[in-house]
Amino acid sequence: MRINIHRLLMDIDRYAAYGKNEYGGVTRPSFSPADHEVRQLFIEEITEMGMQVTIDGAANIWGRYKGAGKKEGSIVIGSHLDSVPNGGKYDGPLGVLMAKEIVKSLIESNIRLDHDIEIVSFTAEESNDFNLSTFGSRSFVGRITAEMVEGARDLKGARLSDELIKVNGGLDKFGMMKNMHSEKKAFIELHIEQGQRLENANISMAVINSVVGTYRSTVRVLGQSNHSGTTMMNDRKDALTAASEMILAVERYCSDKGNVVGTVGKLTVSPNAANIIPGQIDFILEVRAEKSETIQETVEAIQEVWREIATRREVEIQQEVFLNQKPEVLDQDVVTCLVETAKEMNEPCLILPSMAVHDAAHMASVTKSAMVFVKSIDGKSHCPEEYSHPDDIEKAGNLILHGIINLDHILSEY
Amino acid sequence: MRINIHRLLMDIDRYAAYGKNEYGGVTRPSFSPADHEVRQLFIEEITEMGMQVTIDGAANIWGRYKGAGKKEGSIVIGSHLDSVPNGGKYDGPLGVLMAKEIVKSLIESNIRLDHDIEIVSFTAEESNDFNLSTFGSRSFVGRITAEMVEGARDLKGARLSDELIKVNGGLDKFGMMKNMHSEKKAFIELHIEQGQRLENANISMAVINSVVGTYRSTVRVLGQSNHSGTTMMNDRKDALTAASEMILAVERYCSDKGNVVGTVGKLTVSPNAANIIPGQIDFILEVRAEKSETIQETVEAIQEVWREIATRREVEIQQEVFLNQKPEVLDQDVVTCLVETAKEMNEPCLILPSMAVHDAAHMASVTKSAMVFVKSIDGKSHCPEEYSHPDDIEKAGNLILHGIINLDHILSEY
Repeated sequence: MRINIHRLLMDIDRYAAYGKNEYGGVTRPSFSPADHEVRQLFIEEITEMGMQVTIDGAANIWGRYKGAGKKEGSIVIGSHLDSVPNGGKYDGPLGVLMAKEIVKSLIESNIRLDHDIEIVSFTAEESNDFNLSTFGSRSFVGRITAEMVEGARDLKGARLSDELIKVNGGLDKFGMMKNMHSEKKAFIELHIEQGQRLENANISMAVINSVVGTYRSTVRVLGQSNHSGTTMMNDRKDALTAASEMILAVERYCSDKGNVVGTVGKLTVSPNAANIIPGQIDFILEVRAEKSETIQETVEAIQEVWREIATRREVEIQQEVFLNQKPEVLDQDVVTCLVETAKEMNEPCLILPSMAVHDAAHMASVTKSAMVFVKSIDGKSHCPEEYSHPDDIEKAGNLILHGIINLDHILSEY
Repeated sequence: MRINIHRLLMDIDRYAAYGKNEYGGVTRPSFSPADHEVRQLFIEEITEMGMQVTIDGAANIWGRYKGAGKKEGSIVIGSHLDSVPNGGKYDGPLGVLMAKEIVKSLIESNIRLDHDIEIVSFTAEESNDFNLSTFGSRSFVGRITAEMVEGARDLKGARLSDELIKVNGGLDKFGMMKNMHSEKKAFIELHIEQGQRLENANISMAVINSVVGTYRSTVRVLGQSNHSGTTMMNDRKDALTAASEMILAVERYCSDKGNVVGTVGKLTVSPNAANIIPGQIDFILEVRAEKSETIQETVEAIQEVWREIATRREVEIQQEVFLNQKPEVLDQDVVTCLVETAKEMNEPCLILPSMAVHDAAHMASVTKSAMVFVKSIDGKSHCPEEYSHPDDIEKAGNLILHGIINLDHILSEY
């Protein structure tokens, strides 16, 4: 039994049309009009396949393919359908549409497992304007609470709680999510690698046994806005030149260390006019590493350099941590099952840590979880050029298809 | 005869209420709702004073106080009513409201000069989203043509030509402005200094005899957007760290030279998400100096450093000049008249070049023009803390009031 790669590739293209932009990329953040449309499409298609659809408080979409009834609970496969601004068509949708394809393959082969199989599309996995990435999975496992959602607004003042209601989630359903945990017996997420380790090794796929930790803080640099013509260079307290030095300090420290990555990806200038020296810069500092201690050391080293910059330039730096996601070890049983399945298939695969946080990292706190990565060409992701080869995708899909059949047996023996 | 400083201060506060923001500053760019309101107010008030109101193609507002009819044409005084985002209440309005106050003083003293006195409020003097600062005066003198306006749109896609119509300007009236030049016999603009030279000299005001040149270009830095977790530091083409180096190079060069100021005041990041390495940065480089050669040398030196950065970081830099305003020498007769008037009044004043471009720099190309600066406390401008002392404002107002009376005689003798 094999997945139908052609049908899957058509699905990927079909879904990528929602939110397609002028640069050839996909802009489909959760709660956008394009997201509303693609949710509707996904719900319609899995309903048509005969799956039972549930939408939880965080607006995560669950579709259930009933098993033979021998065992309670489900094995869950899935990922997310939202994208970054001007992203590609694989990051997220590949895992969700592959889950749909795997269930289709089971239906066509008339196979019902001991457990139910569930497919899931998590809400707002990507970094978003509510500063709550992996929102859906974090909410599901209880790491984001209803109280945290109540205060969340985007830059335009829209309330996250209102956006949830529009897609059939909502705070009134938030508490019920914890009752769903015990019947999720395992979770496997397929995702593109978004790096170059598989390409460098010339191997199609990897089983992921841990997920990197991620630290994010908002940083505000306060200088003095003033007229750009009449304020001599030495009289300035330019928040942007101060921020420039701070950003270069992050780059320099992380490049020297090698075992940590640091990024400023989001930055805004105030008042942002050609003839005004910037008085305020707001940016987000992100640091990722495989060990919590490495993250901590990096943040402290950067802050020390920043303090010197602030003193010398007479600017004020305010910093607030809003994410401090610890590294996660994934489930050894599921990892072993997937590695053994690959061996049965005679397909080489690596065992790697993930340098990006995924929904699986949060699901790991409530159920036995692991991931499969598929090779990314040139390591590109979060851009229109993001690409994985159909042969690699097909191998990874078949690994999961046979992996869940094996896992179904293993879990039944517990 | 003296201006009424209390009435003027009340006017300044009254006008500052339009566009007042939560930070205590004024946000009143031209064509904003607050600008629409303040235009209406100004037109009503000068109409009530008995002035004839004309609105030209660029939506500049002209109010005419008829003279005794002995001489054709007018002496014009004025400035602009628009503000930068979160600016102060003096930059612009001081010159317009002082012009109104001066005419009020003439009316109360029953004085009609040989020439008419006109007061003017120019449109969109400040740097704006159409990338056309000193829009009103440049359009009036023909430096901005109808063709240039036709293509102009702001970031939201609004057409400048449509915005003009909403405030009773419009492209159909653009050609007629050149017919108005010959009857403008002189122009004097009062403005805050926005620097610290007067404060350092402990002198209330200056007569301005030249205006600095200003160069502005849009700069685009193209790197590669990619995932912030999985892309190792050495594999990145981060447009923001490249731009940071470029911005610091501007600061370093101009600080070393001393006779030039260079600023990046406006900058946007794409795609601007915490977990994406920035693929594109757009910013505006501004360089100002008293000599054209200095500007040219500075731009070339900066570009040389930028080329090295682009090569080393493997990013692409695109640059397009959209303003290259040459330094302007103002009118010697008007400058001398103002300096002599100050002597008659026993008020010390400096003679200075202006480090900022003003509407007077453009008006100088069609009529005899000069400026008066009033001391700015701490040199602050384009911010809510912008402040000039009432005593200094009063002296500068009386200088212009008596200056135009003297100038009326001088021009009559021609």
